[in-house]
Amino acid sequence: MTTQTYLVSGMSCGHCETAVRSELGAVPGVQQVEVSAATGRLTVTTDGSVDDATVIAAVDEAGYQAQRG
Amino acid sequence: MTTQTYLVSGMSCGHCETAVRSELGAVPGVQQVEVSAATGRLTVTTDGSVDDATVIAAVDEAGYQAQRG
Repeated sequence: MTTQTYLVSGMSCGHCETAVRSELGAVPGVQQVEVSAATGRLTVTTDGSVDDATVIAAVDEAGYQAQRG
Repeated sequence: MTTQTYLVSGMSCGHCETAVRSELGAVPGVQQVEVSAATGRLTVTTDGSVDDATVIAAVDEAGYQAQRG
């Protein structure tokens, strides 16, 4: 189990959190997602097979920008 | 055809607009909905059978507060 943290910009509300959570939840290997629009913090727990680029791409797909943080 | 305008507080993004649009679109008699998170302005076009209380209740159901404006 691996935990990676990121900073996501552009989220403004609970709908935004849901969009990010939903997109990441569909990535194989992702086990848990915690995300807060208030702080911009995103914590992703995986089976160890998910790299940063994959997480960042999923966040981008949801419409936001993430960086490792 | 009747057009009613409202001010909605609490919308912060496009997801919020979608939530309001979707809830109002399910109200019988509603023909068109225009909503902007940036301005808070909501314009509802109906067949004349939809009163303010119904519009305000639908917005409330979506999670926001509307007043005639």
